[in-house]
Amino acid sequence: MKLLRYGPAGQERPGLLDADGGIRDLSGHVAEIGPDTLAPAALAALATLDPRSLPLVEGAPRLGVPLAGIGKFIAIGLNYADHAAESNLPIPAEPVVFTKAISALSGPHDPVMLPRDSVKSDWEVELGIVIGRRAAYVERAEALDYVAGYCVVNDVSEREYQIERGGTWDKGKGCDTFGPVGPWLVTADEVGDPQALDLWLDLNGRRMQTGNTRTMIFSCAEIVAYVSRFMTLLPGDLITTGTPPGVGMGIKPQPVFLKPGDVMRLGIEKLGEQRQAVVAWRRRED
Amino acid sequence: MKLLRYGPAGQERPGLLDADGGIRDLSGHVAEIGPDTLAPAALAALATLDPRSLPLVEGAPRLGVPLAGIGKFIAIGLNYADHAAESNLPIPAEPVVFTKAISALSGPHDPVMLPRDSVKSDWEVELGIVIGRRAAYVERAEALDYVAGYCVVNDVSEREYQIERGGTWDKGKGCDTFGPVGPWLVTADEVGDPQALDLWLDLNGRRMQTGNTRTMIFSCAEIVAYVSRFMTLLPGDLITTGTPPGVGMGIKPQPVFLKPGDVMRLGIEKLGEQRQAVVAWRRRED
Repeated sequence: MKLLRYGPAGQERPGLLDADGGIRDLSGHVAEIGPDTLAPAALAALATLDPRSLPLVEGAPRLGVPLAGIGKFIAIGLNYADHAAESNLPIPAEPVVFTKAISALSGPHDPVMLPRDSVKSDWEVELGIVIGRRAAYVERAEALDYVAGYCVVNDVSEREYQIERGGTWDKGKGCDTFGPVGPWLVTADEVGDPQALDLWLDLNGRRMQTGNTRTMIFSCAEIVAYVSRFMTLLPGDLITTGTPPGVGMGIKPQPVFLKPGDVMRLGIEKLGEQRQAVVAWRRRED
Repeated sequence: MKLLRYGPAGQERPGLLDADGGIRDLSGHVAEIGPDTLAPAALAALATLDPRSLPLVEGAPRLGVPLAGIGKFIAIGLNYADHAAESNLPIPAEPVVFTKAISALSGPHDPVMLPRDSVKSDWEVELGIVIGRRAAYVERAEALDYVAGYCVVNDVSEREYQIERGGTWDKGKGCDTFGPVGPWLVTADEVGDPQALDLWLDLNGRRMQTGNTRTMIFSCAEIVAYVSRFMTLLPGDLITTGTPPGVGMGIKPQPVFLKPGDVMRLGIEKLGEQRQAVVAWRRRED
């Protein structure tokens, strides 16, 4: 299944994508795509529905983050050997773990806002893991049993904030809109092997990142097992698993960073595509 | 006002502390102490209640984290000059920002569990700031207008995970139960100047930490203003502001770390006291 949430920001409704690419309304069956929806039994119940029996949503509504109630937005750094090299950093001996603020979460096609004084905002296409069951001290061999599904994440990063401002990377990873997720949450059964997925990112129509999850240093199973030793993972937690080569910071001879007017397109095999226009930061009305 | 939540974990009810130290039930007026309760108008409405008109809660129920719906649990590192010195780290030029997992949140008197292979778990009494209004790019002079109140936080930290395991500090800061908060959320009007509060921590009856918030390197106002440039702060976000000297890692000639059977007591002037028994990690039943 490809689960999604559609509608204006803050008013999204649950849905799923049918075989023809149409959005079907799930609100007659679940109130929300959230932690409770991700339990194996709850997903199994949804899988019994015939999509053609669900109301077809007309038009082309906005898509939101495909699940609500994300408690932790955890990220793994330097998880592709080639990307570590372009960042001039050694291959880590164990996973590098940092955190993205949940206020950074953003729909897959929503604009990405540059912080007011940003001069080094950068892109990172990544495979996101969505946890479906409480996971503490799980073994690698069983770790994927705790995964509800996968999604595309753009781990947008301000390199000056991340690297040059003291302290941890978190400062440059959690800015508003720096966490586009989606377009859908694809259940694990439909993805199969998460270590055999092509991923790519284009900036203004030019291919910048190309990779495949088979070249991850730490596999999805290793990551889930590893993180579960430091904190209990809960249904709805999202772990983004690192980016392949081709980020702006690594471009020679001159790094390239995002500016208003840029357009990012990115995708992962089986998981769909995102498109974001880059804009200046603006205050949310409320 | 001293707002609190009482009852078994996961079933807490809203309450407030009356002038005699009794718990009064607020559930007739608000469903929860959470982000919506922290808006200035909502707090003003609660302040009009006469505590003696509210039902007195019998017995001595467990206290939970004094607010629900914490979205971000942000922490500032090395914010007391003496603590930076005992950690053998330079005084930071700007605030060090890291993140505690929200799954680490724990009631003020709940046991603190040591991770399974932990050998360097440590204590840190800290002043917590609770955000009451959406804050993005706020100026230092107005930053405290965005604060709903303050609370005691024990920023429990596993030093090996934090420092010796690669990557950011987050690995050693977000373990289960590593974030006791409370006993209450004291509204800003009742606290007055947040830079004039004594704070202390005892381990097994022996005073380990003594300090006053006046020796912070970056004040509460500076911290709120600073963090709001990197991410929008939302009602219910919690920022813990660093610890004074006296952590176990800094003890000479031999560091002291937590072990099962230890008891921590800690408190901050005007904000109450916490008490935690230290226990081995155990799997939550569910």
